[in-house]
Amino acid sequence: MSEPINRQFRLARRPGARVNPEDFELRRERVPDPRPGEAVVRIEWLSLDPTNRIWMSDMEQYMPPVQLGEVMRGNAVGRIVASARPDYAVGDVVSGLFGWQDYCVIGGDVTAFKLPAIGVSPSLFLGLLGLTGVTAWFGLHDVGKPQPGETVVVTAAAGAVGSVAGQLAKLHGCRVVGIAGTRAKCEWLTGELGFDAAVCYREPGFSAALAAACPTGIDVDFENVGGEILDEILARCNLHARVALCGLIGSYTRDNRVPGPAHFPLVMMKRLRVEGFIIIDYLPRWGEAVQRLGALLAEGRLKSRETIVEGLEQAPAALNQLFDGDNTGKLVVRVA
Amino acid sequence: MSEPINRQFRLARRPGARVNPEDFELRRERVPDPRPGEAVVRIEWLSLDPTNRIWMSDMEQYMPPVQLGEVMRGNAVGRIVASARPDYAVGDVVSGLFGWQDYCVIGGDVTAFKLPAIGVSPSLFLGLLGLTGVTAWFGLHDVGKPQPGETVVVTAAAGAVGSVAGQLAKLHGCRVVGIAGTRAKCEWLTGELGFDAAVCYREPGFSAALAAACPTGIDVDFENVGGEILDEILARCNLHARVALCGLIGSYTRDNRVPGPAHFPLVMMKRLRVEGFIIIDYLPRWGEAVQRLGALLAEGRLKSRETIVEGLEQAPAALNQLFDGDNTGKLVVRVA
Repeated sequence: MSEPINRQFRLARRPGARVNPEDFELRRERVPDPRPGEAVVRIEWLSLDPTNRIWMSDMEQYMPPVQLGEVMRGNAVGRIVASARPDYAVGDVVSGLFGWQDYCVIGGDVTAFKLPAIGVSPSLFLGLLGLTGVTAWFGLHDVGKPQPGETVVVTAAAGAVGSVAGQLAKLHGCRVVGIAGTRAKCEWLTGELGFDAAVCYREPGFSAALAAACPTGIDVDFENVGGEILDEILARCNLHARVALCGLIGSYTRDNRVPGPAHFPLVMMKRLRVEGFIIIDYLPRWGEAVQRLGALLAEGRLKSRETIVEGLEQAPAALNQLFDGDNTGKLVVRVA
Repeated sequence: MSEPINRQFRLARRPGARVNPEDFELRRERVPDPRPGEAVVRIEWLSLDPTNRIWMSDMEQYMPPVQLGEVMRGNAVGRIVASARPDYAVGDVVSGLFGWQDYCVIGGDVTAFKLPAIGVSPSLFLGLLGLTGVTAWFGLHDVGKPQPGETVVVTAAAGAVGSVAGQLAKLHGCRVVGIAGTRAKCEWLTGELGFDAAVCYREPGFSAALAAACPTGIDVDFENVGGEILDEILARCNLHARVALCGLIGSYTRDNRVPGPAHFPLVMMKRLRVEGFIIIDYLPRWGEAVQRLGALLAEGRLKSRETIVEGLEQAPAALNQLFDGDNTGKLVVRVA
């Protein structure tokens, strides 16, 4: 049996409008043995998220950007394969910012959270029971603060965060309208996830369709996109509506930056609250959300869907799916 | 003695980039006698406010726009000269949306608030003790919510609302930085009103000067302007900073609309709260603010300044002062 090799995607240059494999150096290294206080995790699932694109850029952001030469940062789930510390045993399933690689050494800057064995795919701890589910939970309830009966619009509604946020809003008693890029996604939202309506932003008549789907206006916008779609929403917001600003997927590179919302004056005219949030601020309350999400999942009241990419080597190209709108639900890479 | 004549500015067309007297029809009418349930007020002071410009336009706004042919809407103070209702006596000093005219009939849609006799110029009830003071009070304390020790930036800081908002922030224990258009205004802010610093946005090096004036970043922005100035502020906001969006003086006409903030993604990255407000939402709490403002004024802890325009006939041209940055403090027209 040959010695295991750790493949690492190290950032070689900052991507342009699209992410290319050539933006990375694919390095092969021997898997290190853990030193005292360290453990080694074999990565099984790698999460691909829009925020990866932010981290690759040098724009002003909420964490330090990945530096050229560093292993690309990424959220992942894996299994401990070697340990020289008492708190991790071989076989433990853990999650953390393990990066775009096959193996990661835990210790120093890299921390790992042990995942409970609840009989679901560990990849779920990257989605519904992880970063995206928790983002949807706090973004909806703590930032958007919808009241039952209000109309909640979710953009990128068929994405990992949006699909959970919309379901949570529905469970909260709201009228939920999703905005997505294809008719198939819209049918999934209304047919499978219980959204009251879904509107395809790529089809002609989007503006009128959105208006028809929101006959009493919009009270909360769970915003993942920005740009013209946000402007259409602002135009239909009710007085005192709230925009929970989770993402601006059109604005994550210098090359395809979208302008600020043309309807910005409506924030004043309609007394809107536009509030940004980043899930790292909710780390102390993580368990609270996961517990509630897990219970809803177990009761069959929340549904999850994954788009699975096979093989770590696909990660750079696959990231573009998030920006092209090709994935439905959580985009993950099966690494091992 | 000739019969008194009521001059009325009626909106004849929607202004372009500037307001011209030709945008109005100046009509002369006999002053009507009050019918039962009515009273007639002789207007003494007319308030000129940036929002007048909104009302003249047909953009989406927070009240119905003034229709062509209608008397221009305006906040004013005057004295009852004839009354056919028991709640107003001749000589009462009242304020209300009496319009751009010499006389106004109270009754029907037009209501009037009786002003207390506290030995100050009635014009103060258009400024520090009226719409602008109350706007500053609630915008700062209820929307911006600064904590003592935080840095508060105020745009259009030498204007009617900004000059009060900045003084209130200073009284609240904040570091207060004003942004204004001339060096003389900046000197007034720091020399007379006690601002910690003031920066002239028209001078070269504005960006660096703002940074120097806010060495620990910006925690609250009391925003009256928008556009590039807002972008400079967003770039210097601290995490979880708040933008109390009071005005966007660059966006009140179709002809000189400014684009949305280019730094809008920072609302997400820095978890900012951008919240619009309009003072009409605070009508039920009006007295609360006026009482506090009046006490501070009486104690000499709040200062007020007016730019007085002589004669109703000057109103259309004088309104441009607000957009040219020519006035300091509250801009009022002495009508009688």
